[in-house]
Amino acid sequence: MRVVVPFDATEPKTRLSSVLSADERREFAAVLLGDVLDAIAAADVETDVEVVATDDVDCDAPVTVDDRPLDPAINDRLDAGPLAVVMADLAIATPAAIERLFAPDDDVVLVPGLGGGTNAFVARTDAFRVDYHDASIRDHRENARAVGSVAEVDSFRLAVDVDEPGDLAEVLLHGAGEAPEWLRERGFAVATDGRTGVERGED
Amino acid sequence: MRVVVPFDATEPKTRLSSVLSADERREFAAVLLGDVLDAIAAADVETDVEVVATDDVDCDAPVTVDDRPLDPAINDRLDAGPLAVVMADLAIATPAAIERLFAPDDDVVLVPGLGGGTNAFVARTDAFRVDYHDASIRDHRENARAVGSVAEVDSFRLAVDVDEPGDLAEVLLHGAGEAPEWLRERGFAVATDGRTGVERGED
Repeated sequence: MRVVVPFDATEPKTRLSSVLSADERREFAAVLLGDVLDAIAAADVETDVEVVATDDVDCDAPVTVDDRPLDPAINDRLDAGPLAVVMADLAIATPAAIERLFAPDDDVVLVPGLGGGTNAFVARTDAFRVDYHDASIRDHRENARAVGSVAEVDSFRLAVDVDEPGDLAEVLLHGAGEAPEWLRERGFAVATDGRTGVERGED
Repeated sequence: MRVVVPFDATEPKTRLSSVLSADERREFAAVLLGDVLDAIAAADVETDVEVVATDDVDCDAPVTVDDRPLDPAINDRLDAGPLAVVMADLAIATPAAIERLFAPDDDVVLVPGLGGGTNAFVARTDAFRVDYHDASIRDHRENARAVGSVAEVDSFRLAVDVDEPGDLAEVLLHGAGEAPEWLRERGFAVATDGRTGVERGED
């Protein structure tokens, strides 16, 4: 199946600006993208991956530069038939978790993200449309029910995306790719002073 | 299998004090407990459930009052053979998610929670010991590996526990029991002003 991984190559991960510089955020976003592409490549599913990026990015998959907002960029591709979309910042995704995304054979398979996002989906009908925004999972459930059968995948590893400093603790605790090492090399460690978060010490 | 659900009946959910009064927090904690017990009861697994509470609580399961800290209260019970522990605040747990906890037949089955907690586990060996604290999943992985085979269950519905106001958004978006309705009746709604959270309006 065609798999699109959307990537913001322009100003990624702005909500990490309190702990990472702009250059670091661009580099970290590319590391996360690499981890997601590795998890997809190692999963036991036939996929044809395309990174759809706002600007060119160096990675192990064909890149199409498409500087439109996410909704039209994805909806145009949904017109062309069965499609999966996997977000580029699912830092703790594993091949097994990716396989679970493709396991149900429903017309639409949704994967909720923390905070109500939609971190991945499979659409086997060209009638499904996306409308990304905060708490998009509610609209996507409704859109999906209107066009066919719907399944949801209950995965912690696909529910965690990296938006805020607190999310970095999940990467350090559960990350399977390059991202945890990248963070550790830059002085990040899990902090547990009452609430779990991250601290950044000397590099 | 014996299932213990630990419950703080004394001063529960203190980190929700910015949005709920002390009485409301006690009531909400009991609603969450009820939802967890319902999910376990409806799961297609043979369980013998015991609520281990710091004080008496009204619920649909036998309650043992044990005012010791969590670690000795659980470790004593681990001595007596195979045991599962499920936290009382897994607000979006479903029967299907509970069934996944019991699916692997490993000596120890761990379910990570957000922020590095251990939201549930099954121990089929009496050699496993718990050590709850922030980011306890790291120690529990180590303790488990030292005593036998280990599996982890990748579940968003079991990873979410209710500690902070932001967690209430997950309850409203994905909750399957009484908790979402309890929150809505008290004026809570998903807020999506840039970041997903909750807002509390008029009751």
